[in-house]
Amino acid sequence: MDQHPSTQPIRIGIVGYGNLGRGVEAAIARNPDMRAAGIYTRRDPDQLKPQGKDVPVYRMDELAAHGDQVDVLILCGGSKDDLPEQSPQLAARFCLVDSFDTHARIPGHFAAVDAAAQGGKTTALISAGWDPGMFSLNRLMGEALLPDGATYTFWGKGLSQGHSDAIRRVPGVAGGVQYTIPIDAAVEQVRSGTRPQLTTREKHRRECFVVLKDGADQEAVRSAIVGMPHYFDEYDTTVNFISAQELAREHSAMPHGGFVIRSGNTSDGVQQVIEYGLKLDSNPEFTAAVLVAYARAVHRLHRAGQHGCKTVFDVAPGLLSPRSAAELRADLL
Amino acid sequence: MDQHPSTQPIRIGIVGYGNLGRGVEAAIARNPDMRAAGIYTRRDPDQLKPQGKDVPVYRMDELAAHGDQVDVLILCGGSKDDLPEQSPQLAARFCLVDSFDTHARIPGHFAAVDAAAQGGKTTALISAGWDPGMFSLNRLMGEALLPDGATYTFWGKGLSQGHSDAIRRVPGVAGGVQYTIPIDAAVEQVRSGTRPQLTTREKHRRECFVVLKDGADQEAVRSAIVGMPHYFDEYDTTVNFISAQELAREHSAMPHGGFVIRSGNTSDGVQQVIEYGLKLDSNPEFTAAVLVAYARAVHRLHRAGQHGCKTVFDVAPGLLSPRSAAELRADLL
Repeated sequence: MDQHPSTQPIRIGIVGYGNLGRGVEAAIARNPDMRAAGIYTRRDPDQLKPQGKDVPVYRMDELAAHGDQVDVLILCGGSKDDLPEQSPQLAARFCLVDSFDTHARIPGHFAAVDAAAQGGKTTALISAGWDPGMFSLNRLMGEALLPDGATYTFWGKGLSQGHSDAIRRVPGVAGGVQYTIPIDAAVEQVRSGTRPQLTTREKHRRECFVVLKDGADQEAVRSAIVGMPHYFDEYDTTVNFISAQELAREHSAMPHGGFVIRSGNTSDGVQQVIEYGLKLDSNPEFTAAVLVAYARAVHRLHRAGQHGCKTVFDVAPGLLSPRSAAELRADLL
Repeated sequence: MDQHPSTQPIRIGIVGYGNLGRGVEAAIARNPDMRAAGIYTRRDPDQLKPQGKDVPVYRMDELAAHGDQVDVLILCGGSKDDLPEQSPQLAARFCLVDSFDTHARIPGHFAAVDAAAQGGKTTALISAGWDPGMFSLNRLMGEALLPDGATYTFWGKGLSQGHSDAIRRVPGVAGGVQYTIPIDAAVEQVRSGTRPQLTTREKHRRECFVVLKDGADQEAVRSAIVGMPHYFDEYDTTVNFISAQELAREHSAMPHGGFVIRSGNTSDGVQQVIEYGLKLDSNPEFTAAVLVAYARAVHRLHRAGQHGCKTVFDVAPGLLSPRSAAELRADLL
């Protein structure tokens, strides 16, 4: 497999330009072996202001004609509506990376993208990011290294987009955000290697910051939130009521993170604990950074004739780095 | 690449039976798709007691005739004298994994093993373990994901074999161990994402537990240890004098561990921190667990016709797991 940098920058097409798309553009600017070849949007291209002044913006329907201008597409749409349609459709003609993150639907998404990529002799990698993505890798490695063990994933402290959306749909709520917070006592128990059985409520708590609409009943809103099935009812949830100004001032960043901990025994009474943790100022920018590194790997796999759909489990780590295999062995091994 | 479990257990030959070899035997017992086919020793096989009663013990010179009884050898000798000779020699005829850990000599070792493995159409993986090994992987991934950043490796708290050996060579010392300890203030600075410049002395301190020979001068021993070039002179070192009984009772385990931390920016002012940590009751047993997982990958790479020398950078994570690619996607992604 080719592990040497290509002489020409890898040309990346950015499909969608929300928080994730902007993060991809920022990440490409920090990787000298890559170039943002274009941004593709369903909005009016004239209304869109890329951070890089020399990055052209195109209408989505222009993409079909740009097969010779782009090496790898990075799809920056959502997992609910955009990616299930876009990834299989585009994989028929383009190499691509997406961040499809609906865990339960990954096998179906994989099958659809694989069929398209095999047909088109392209290479596509789905579900890159940090969970799925880096956390998945660490779940796999932990289990492979310590088969007699247990894996724990904790998320946060971080802003959950899905739970924030759920709060905002409650009648009487003008705005709000939700933070997922791992419970320290549970994390410490897991780190100690005792392999505790933990309920949902014991692992995470949820904290909400809510702006009420004029005349809304605070207690009614609180009780609608904390009792909401699937989202909040299995957790201890705190609801704080704040002003719109405070919401804008204190809660507009998108921090996140978490840990994957594997604890296991290599012989009787001998405990080993592996912990992988992320502390992210910006969830979308870190996800974007992962997508960009995997776009490099996809480009190399494609040049090596490895077609079809891949995941992070299929990519040798060396393919993520712009450096040669010999340099990596000498400097990082 | 074949990602399905083979129907026959992978037959592992264990070369050398010290702490690491015993750890490999224990790890194989926890991996149902593998079998310890034999232990090869330079000692008298009759004097050696494997943990598994059904594991045959052979003289080292019997190995040459066992090409059809072993799928992968795991070499459990030392990096100073054993592996530089054994790995290239055995790679000419066997697939193998070693834990060669003299960082500066990895390129030369790689070249020697690669030549032998290419010639013999075998597959060999060198420098598996945790450092080199898991820590190397995390240095590579951190740099690839956050190119604008800095990587820090901390070791410990853990028993350093090399430094313990150095203590024991000091005149007047009857026995002793050395622990490498990361300095909390440095770790916290790194975790905060500020990318500090740290000297050797600021990152780790060293703590020694020493048993004196009868009549030895305590102060002379202390000063010989703390001033020892390369080993101790660049560190703050504490020397504690204890009895032989206390040494045996409190300091015969081999705990170790440490962290690899990458902190970087994905855009101006946006910090992201990745941390990988190990807390190991037994250094050799964990190293052994890594060697065994990579032996599985080596077996698969060989069956896929990928010959030559590899490192952890060349192995797709999915190859480490006994589970099928479809199962891994459904359960762990």
